[in-house]
Amino acid sequence: MPNYAIIVAGGKGERMGQQLPKQFLELAGKPILMHTIEKFYNTSPEFKIILALPENQFDYWEELCYKYGFTKIPHQLVAGGKTRFDSVKNALKLVTENGIVAIHDGVRPLVSIQTITNCIAAAQINGNAIPVVDVVDSIRFVSKQENTNKAVPRSCYKNVQTPQCFKTEIILKAYEQDFDESFTDDASVVEKLGYQINLVEGNTENIKITSPIDMAVAVVLLAR
Amino acid sequence: MPNYAIIVAGGKGERMGQQLPKQFLELAGKPILMHTIEKFYNTSPEFKIILALPENQFDYWEELCYKYGFTKIPHQLVAGGKTRFDSVKNALKLVTENGIVAIHDGVRPLVSIQTITNCIAAAQINGNAIPVVDVVDSIRFVSKQENTNKAVPRSCYKNVQTPQCFKTEIILKAYEQDFDESFTDDASVVEKLGYQINLVEGNTENIKITSPIDMAVAVVLLAR
Repeated sequence: MPNYAIIVAGGKGERMGQQLPKQFLELAGKPILMHTIEKFYNTSPEFKIILALPENQFDYWEELCYKYGFTKIPHQLVAGGKTRFDSVKNALKLVTENGIVAIHDGVRPLVSIQTITNCIAAAQINGNAIPVVDVVDSIRFVSKQENTNKAVPRSCYKNVQTPQCFKTEIILKAYEQDFDESFTDDASVVEKLGYQINLVEGNTENIKITSPIDMAVAVVLLAR
Repeated sequence: MPNYAIIVAGGKGERMGQQLPKQFLELAGKPILMHTIEKFYNTSPEFKIILALPENQFDYWEELCYKYGFTKIPHQLVAGGKTRFDSVKNALKLVTENGIVAIHDGVRPLVSIQTITNCIAAAQINGNAIPVVDVVDSIRFVSKQENTNKAVPRSCYKNVQTPQCFKTEIILKAYEQDFDESFTDDASVVEKLGYQINLVEGNTENIKITSPIDMAVAVVLLAR
């Protein structure tokens, strides 16, 4: 029974203050995306890896693979859509056998093998699992309508990471739904079907690289 | 009209995996706490700086000040209490004139002068102000009683930082209240009196150093 890893790399680079989409930025000698793909391969070479990338970046990715000698890890390319939802939906068309689908942000290269393994294992038992970590800062709920805000206990909240893992039949059914504003990640799509989401402890280093500061932080974390 | 800066450094070091309390860890050539104090001095040398520190660390702090030649910035020491609430309460005993009180975590050395200035200015107008930044990750609300969790829109939440700034009469009155479990920071103490809290944009670098990873991140951020 194969497991699938869908790596979503939709970045067009606007938030990094530079032209190059963030998934291609070089981190410790190679593009972020290669680190991310390697994490899944190193967890299990049996993963069927599907990379959702904007179609106009396909050629550039192939150039990069050639340049960095990144030819060992088989992966299928699929055209990203306008939104993350569309990208995942396109990638799911390549999921044809029963198993687990792990959906992961391309710009989270610091996920640990332990996190991937734990999420896959929990999804095999419970149908789904996502990695979460404690909220460290105090947080406030802000009501824009009422122009008010109030302290909320941070122990009642968790920060959500990826890979978000699901049995194939569940995630395929979930992505048949029409897009909804409440879909902030894959778990929220599955939740809309009525499933309870299972939380697994993630690794705090598993940050999403979206700013130049994150990039600097990732360099340090990767060197540790 | 003087402004006060209360720097709360209650750390006993347990979370850093070493004996030395985290506020004394060396960052770019000097203890974290010295960076923090300098930020307020550099914002305005007129700040009356009060440092709340566990009483058994007073001698060590004086040794450090001597060792690092940290003698230029006047500051008063006050004994920290069992909890952060007690420490702030003790420090407030030294607030004798009307003005603004800025209460800041000793382990947030990366606060910007802009953040301090903006919060003080907003508190002068509105009575209080605290710095907040956007929540970056998806978050979930977790109900331990019901053993359930659900996605919540992260745009409705803000991460809270320090310095939390208040007019003296408001913060003095707030800290006359008995301790309550809902007091997670100074704003929540003031909120309990019925005040609406004013939010000011903070700086994302203004992290609280509580883990070895944070420490590594702080080194990078400080070098930028």
